[in-house]
This record gives sequence, C-alpha cells and structure tokens, in this order.
Amino acid sequence: MLAHRAIKQLRASSLLVHRGFAVLTADTINPNIVKAEYAVRGALVLRSNDYTDRLARGDKSLPFDKVIPCNIGNPLVLKQQPIEFHRQVLALVNVPGLVDESEAQKIFPPDAIARAKFYINNIVGGTGAYGHSKGSAVVREEVARFMERRDSHSADLEDIYLTDGASPAVQNSLLTLIRDEYDAILAPIPQYPLYSAAIALNGGSLVGYYLSEENAWDLDVKELTRAVTQARDAGKNVRAMAVINPGNPTGQCLSLENMKMIIKFCKEENILILADEVYQENVYAEGKKFLSFKKVLRDMGKAYKDVELISFHSTSKGFTGECGRRGGYMELVNIDDSVKDQIYKLMSVNLCSNIDGQLMVGMMTNPPQRGDASYERYAEQRDSILGSLKRRAVKLVKAFNELEGVTCNETEGAMYTFPNITLPAKAIEAAKDAGMAPDAFYCTQMLDDTGIVVVPGSGFGQKEGTWHFRSTILPPEEAVDEVIEKTSKFHAKFMDKYR
Amino acid sequence: MLAHRAIKQLRASSLLVHRGFAVLTADTINPNIVKAEYAVRGALVLRSNDYTDRLARGDKSLPFDKVIPCNIGNPLVLKQQPIEFHRQVLALVNVPGLVDESEAQKIFPPDAIARAKFYINNIVGGTGAYGHSKGSAVVREEVARFMERRDSHSADLEDIYLTDGASPAVQNSLLTLIRDEYDAILAPIPQYPLYSAAIALNGGSLVGYYLSEENAWDLDVKELTRAVTQARDAGKNVRAMAVINPGNPTGQCLSLENMKMIIKFCKEENILILADEVYQENVYAEGKKFLSFKKVLRDMGKAYKDVELISFHSTSKGFTGECGRRGGYMELVNIDDSVKDQIYKLMSVNLCSNIDGQLMVGMMTNPPQRGDASYERYAEQRDSILGSLKRRAVKLVKAFNELEGVTCNETEGAMYTFPNITLPAKAIEAAKDAGMAPDAFYCTQMLDDTGIVVVPGSGFGQKEGTWHFRSTILPPEEAVDEVIEKTSKFHAKFMDKYR
Repeated sequence: MLAHRAIKQLRASSLLVHRGFAVLTADTINPNIVKAEYAVRGALVLRSNDYTDRLARGDKSLPFDKVIPCNIGNPLVLKQQPIEFHRQVLALVNVPGLVDESEAQKIFPPDAIARAKFYINNIVGGTGAYGHSKGSAVVREEVARFMERRDSHSADLEDIYLTDGASPAVQNSLLTLIRDEYDAILAPIPQYPLYSAAIALNGGSLVGYYLSEENAWDLDVKELTRAVTQARDAGKNVRAMAVINPGNPTGQCLSLENMKMIIKFCKEENILILADEVYQENVYAEGKKFLSFKKVLRDMGKAYKDVELISFHSTSKGFTGECGRRGGYMELVNIDDSVKDQIYKLMSVNLCSNIDGQLMVGMMTNPPQRGDASYERYAEQRDSILGSLKRRAVKLVKAFNELEGVTCNETEGAMYTFPNITLPAKAIEAAKDAGMAPDAFYCTQMLDDTGIVVVPGSGFGQKEGTWHFRSTILPPEEAVDEVIEKTSKFHAKFMDKYR
Repeated sequence: MLAHRAIKQLRASSLLVHRGFAVLTADTINPNIVKAEYAVRGALVLRSNDYTDRLARGDKSLPFDKVIPCNIGNPLVLKQQPIEFHRQVLALVNVPGLVDESEAQKIFPPDAIARAKFYINNIVGGTGAYGHSKGSAVVREEVARFMERRDSHSADLEDIYLTDGASPAVQNSLLTLIRDEYDAILAPIPQYPLYSAAIALNGGSLVGYYLSEENAWDLDVKELTRAVTQARDAGKNVRAMAVINPGNPTGQCLSLENMKMIIKFCKEENILILADEVYQENVYAEGKKFLSFKKVLRDMGKAYKDVELISFHSTSKGFTGECGRRGGYMELVNIDDSVKDQIYKLMSVNLCSNIDGQLMVGMMTNPPQRGDASYERYAEQRDSILGSLKRRAVKLVKAFNELEGVTCNETEGAMYTFPNITLPAKAIEAAKDAGMAPDAFYCTQMLDDTGIVVVPGSGFGQKEGTWHFRSTILPPEEAVDEVIEKTSKFHAKFMDKYR
C-alpha cells in the first residue's frame, strides 16, 4: 500500500512539473473508459454516419443509394409507427389546459383524455417538475399491477424504480455491486455489450459463460460451474449473473427448466440474478412463452426467498419501440432494505428520470382495455407490429441459412438474428492485414458494398475461432427482401474473392 | 499490492463459505455509494414526504395544513407555469400527423407548428427513436448559435453534448477525470452536493475552497492557493475545479475580475475548469451580469487557448423550469480530440439522452423571436417569471435579515437564499443529544412546526462553527408572505426555547 501511495505521489508531483500539458488526454483519463467497448455504436456506425452525410449531400460515388441501419434495435427509424394512444396522452398532458379544450375533443379519443387527466391530477407539477427519485407513484402502481397480472404474484410499488431506459438501471446495479476488480459479474457470451462496457466502466471483472450455439444458444449448468470455478480460482468474488431473456444478440427464449436451473445454481452459489427482460413481449417461436425470473423464483416457493433478483424492462422494445423516450424500470426482489435505501440515494443524486418516459412506462404497462375507445386501434397496432416482426425474423433466418458457409439459429424472440459465418482463410488473412477482426472486416466490406450496417460478432463475444454478425429484424417488410438480396449478392462476391 | 490481493482472495473465499448470506447488504455494496451524501433529497425530505402522505389521508394532528417544499429548485410544483410555446411544440411533434390536421391550426400558433415541422423533418424517427449519442444535430446547432449570440465567439456543434439534465453531464465529466482516490477536484464550500456526491461515487477526493461569507460569498486566489497546496502536500493530484456561477446555494454572481483570476490560476496550476452555469438566466442584482467562462476565456486571447473547460447548462432552471424534462448539455472547450472520442463512447453506452428533453434544450436556446406569433406571450411569461423571482428573492433576504441572530447575503442570482443562523448553545446541545448537526436539528424543528422544507447548511458544507439553511425563492408570491410569517414565528419560538 505504501509503495502504491508513493507511486501516486510521484505521479502528482511529476504533473506539477509538467505545467502546460493538457489535464485530459487519452492517456490520463479514467482508464476504465478507455477499456470499455460498445460496438453497437462503434467504428462501423461512425463510418455509416459518414455515408449517410455523403448521400444527403448528393454524393453519387457510393455503390448504394441509402444506408440501412440494422445495427441497433431502433424500430421507429425503420418506419414502425408509434402506438397512437401513448402519444396522444403525452400531448394532452404536456399542453396545460388542452384536456379541457373543445377542439381537443375532436382530435383525441375520450380514453386518452381521461388518462391524461389522471396523470395531471396525480403528478404534482406535471411532466415539467422533478418527481420522486424512484419515479411517480401512480406509474409505479401501474407497473406493479402489470407484473401481478403477468406473474400471478404480488408486486410492491416500493420495489420498483423508474429509470431513463433500462441502460442506466443496469449501470446503477453494476455500480452497486462492483467494489473493485476482484468483484466479478457473470455475463453470457455472446452478450449485448452494455454489460461488458458497464462492468469495465465500474472497474469490475466480467466472467463469461458461453451459450451453446449447437443447442439453439442453450445454457447449461456445467458451463456455469466452469465459469464460476475458474473465476474463484483466480481470486474473484462472483457477485451476480446477468441473464438476457429473450437473448440479445442470440434470440433464444429460456425454458422453465433452464430458468429453474439458473435460480438453483445462483442460490447454491450465492449469486444475485440480473434479469434483462426488455424483450419480454418479443417472442415469436411456436410453443415458446416468456416467463419472468420473478415468477419462476416465486413459484419455486419459500426455499428460494433469499435469492436476490434485479429485473429490467424498457419502453424501447416490444411493440412500443419508444427508444428515444428513455423509459424503463427495475424491480428489486429479495433485496435488503438498507440496500434499497442506498439505491434510492444513488438515484436521487440524478433527481429523477424524465417524466415523459415514466408516463410511457405507465401506458406500456397499462394500455387501453377492451371496451375503451382506443382499444381496437391499439390492438391492431400491437398485433400488426408483432406479426410483422415474426414474419421478418423467419424470412431473414431462412435467407441467412441459404448463404454459403452460414448457419443461423432461429430467432425465438427479441429483435435480432446472429448468423455464424465460416470465413475463408484468405479473408482472415486480409482482415489481419487491415488490422481488423475477421468479422469486423466482413461487416465493413458489407457496409461499403451495400450500405447495410450490421455489428460484428466480436462486439458481443463469441467462441474462439467462430465469426458472426448481428442484424436486427427491423427493416420494414418491403425492405427485408432488399436486405436479403443485397446481403446475398455481397456474400457471394465476398466468398468468391477470398475463397 | 500482494497483501491487497491476498485480502481480497480471503474475502472471496470467506463469502464462499458463508452461503445463504445476502450478496448485497449495506456493508457489502460499493462503499462509494454509502459515502455519497445528497441532502437535497435526504432525511428531511423523506420526513416531509411522510407528512404529505398523512395530510393527504386527512390526518389533522399536524400543526400545519400543507407542506411547502423549499428544499429544491423545482418551480413547476410551486405554480410556475411552463412556457407555452415549448409545450405546444412538444405536443405537435409527438402526435404523428397532428401538424397537418385542420383542428390543430385552431389550437396551436403557426410558429409552433412550423417549429414542430422543422424537428419532424430533421430528426429521423422523431422523438421515439434513439438519436445520435451526442444528441440531435439540429438541436446542437441551435445551442451553438445561442452560445455565439451570448458570447460573441464561435461555437461548434461537435463540441456540444446533449444530456438528461446537467447532473449526468457533471457525473460523466467526473467519471472521466477521476482514476482513484488521489485524483482531486476543487469544489466550493458551500456547494450544491451533486459535486461531493459524484466525487464520492467515483472514488475521488474533494478539495474544498471556501467562499467568503463576509464578502458576499467572494472567492479569492489566496484561498484557492491554500486549497491546492494543501491537497498536493497530501499527495493529491488536483485535476479540476468546479465553479458554480451564479452560485448554489450561495447566489453570488461572479465578476469579470473574479473569473479572470480563476482562469489564470487554472492555467498556472494546470487545472481543468468545470463551469456549472445552469443559473445563467437567473441574475437579479443591479449592475450584475452573467458572463460565461467560455466568453471570458476566449476574450483573454490565445495565451489561454490551452485552458480546458467543460461548461454545463440545463432546461431545469432559468425561467424555463422544465426539471422533469431532463434536458441539458455540456460544451467541451479546448479538450483533446481523443478525449472527446472517449466521452462520445461513454455516452453511447447509454445510447442517447431523451429526445423530448433535447427538444426542450432546442426551444430554450432558440425561443420565438420578435415578429413570431408566439413572441409576445413568450416574452410576457419570461419577464413575469424573472421579475417575480427577483421580488421574491429581495423579500426573503430582507425578512431573514430581520430574524434574531440571522444574517443573509443578497441573492444576486440563482434560486436560493442561504441565511447564516447563530444558534444558542442550548440548541447545539439539544442537537447533539438528538444525534443531529445543529442546523439539521433546526431545520427538522422548522419542518415539524411549519411544514416548510429547507435544507441544512451542513448538506452543502460550511465554515466550521457556522450554521445555515438553504431555502429556494420559489414559493409563489402570495405564499412568500406565509413562508416568512411561519418562519419568523418558528424562529422566535425556537430562540425563546433554547436561548
């Protein structure tokens, strides 16, 4: 410790001597930021932004006339329409007095007006005032009732914390869990890189557990045991396990047996479960059904009442697709009261999450009901979006499986396909020369050739020697054929070149 | 280092043995969270929430009939009305097709419709889609033009990052600056506790510099030198200096000379400036004028072009008062490009700030202009709010100065008064018995007696042996007299009891 301190003092005094140097350089900022990687918005996306700008300026030199962003689950940029009821309520809440104007009756349905009045009457100061740091009580109540209907178990609004999307909820959970580099978090490989990035930012250790691509991205207890044993042998304290269900980027929907196994394992090994359930409404596979970890945990009875669980949900996914709203929540299950107080304090430093996003959470969890004026339109929008997503998933997976050297598991749920590409040795060599991971090289070539933006598997982690890319299933149905055609042509050309 | 590692391994293995214990307890969560304090939403506020609930349930046993929240700058809960134009644009943007409906022409003025069309046409996917991680380019352009008009210096939208309010911007800046406990940040005492809390959360060290209450909360270079020297002698690396201008909780508005002194000092000592300028529109004192650090820095010429500056602004304050919207931005001035890339990556992990909040930033910085349909109403709202805030500030400061043993500096700007209270020895003794800081004891008694919520000075830091409280100037004008009357009566009673 003394040596450590002496080194730091040396650093401090050496900086004193070097006046005139910048305080912040890539070498002197918090190294955890430098370590963090987030490929979903990484180099490829920046490159595609440049193409978008060039096309907008009328540049005709590119071999495509538009950029198709399949890098991120962002439905509304790809022509998905927002749920009308939700937007009407937001508008009515935001313009003081509008709910009482006669013109408004002509534009807005009565149930939207009624809901707006409910929020106006129950949220002091409205959408423009700071609210409770855990979020508006009336919205948390809506969330609790939603979870009760979903799980057939009680839910308490005091355990629900509204957040600016699921991302800050995950980040705050990891901030709470991680004390130093010896604190480890289990995360799936492949995984949505929010987890790897946030673990790096908080200075913790990620311990990967591999999903089995051969078995439809299944997860088995042997692999979990291997991961935990190896981490502990390396002196790590395994504190939590992140599970993404349905999977991102892998799309699998966990079975009841799988979930029970995970819960038993976590109880046995004293591990907290972080359940990322943002795709709970996106399940397409026949015979598959989303079950929440809370439900399964509670169904397992009193013996499991000490298993700690934090679950996450968001307005960005499902058929709501309101990403830019930054609405989300977490539920703390079996978490110590003193810890909940500390998490409240942590959230209070940022005062509250945005109120419009909170209201979107309220409407997502408490939508129009049969008999309400907006119900039919709501149900029509919901069914049309989910039906279309399913058709697109099936179509894309089928098309990818027809490409040379490509295999692709079914998209049981979520919003992505994650095809495995067998790259020729010459392509791997060329990637090496270009200083890129082979799948990043492939994806860059695809972007340059077609304007389609996908994310290389290396951004999510993958079994060594395998290569993938993640593509969303979000291009509108009429564009899916175009994506398939362009991808197939590009793939054939690429394989011909490097075979 | 080895000893450190051995201890950690021991901790890991001891946890292994103690299966069945909770993963998260107040003793085992990240201790930085436990250390962080945020009095603005602390114990007193929780106590006041309880009173609010009791009053709502019809409890008649309390000696007051309402809770008056003066603990936080949250204007819209205290009857301030939102700027109408801004809300109209939000509504028009959020309901697809509304801008083209004939009924809408009857409800909304043409400039609001035009602005909504501009945002709809320029923001791909609208308010419900993830946008650029730095924020929408059209809004950043509006901010850049605003800063150019304000400062008479160029501004580049690429240096502007939109955020969910100023708080996460400050937190991300501190996350970037702080590597470990040897990295220190200068912060004023007294100060808005976001700084102390965020420094603690990031595991850094706060080095306080005292503002001089005797000289209207002035700041002098001797005190800065003392603080930095003392910190360096203790082995700290002083990386940045937070300045809040106008001050929170102190309300002073920095003079040009003061700002130049700070900039010279920071250049000389190689310190980055964090300029919290969220109260830039709230200046009330005759002859005082807000100047941005960017302007003063640029006015000082090329010799200062390497002084690094990050400045913050928000939609929550000024006369906009849209706290719940979580709109804000930071500008990075003279910051290394590689660091800007890292900050972009850091922000991309959270995808983007909420788009409604971004639009509020756009409207705040680019409001209706003379000649626009909404201009008169806008100007009327603006002048009425600012005029009223000024009257309330003057009235409260005057009233506090008339209380026995109380002195209170002028509220030159911002939204607070910060009276100094000389507490009798018996009161200090009673506080000790109650296990509270003397000013927390005073504020708790005030809440219990009057329903008025203020924050003890100990939550902001203060010179040892002095006691204060912070009260906002936000109760509506008709309620200010009530606040003054209730406070005066309580104070007299308190002094009589403990004198």
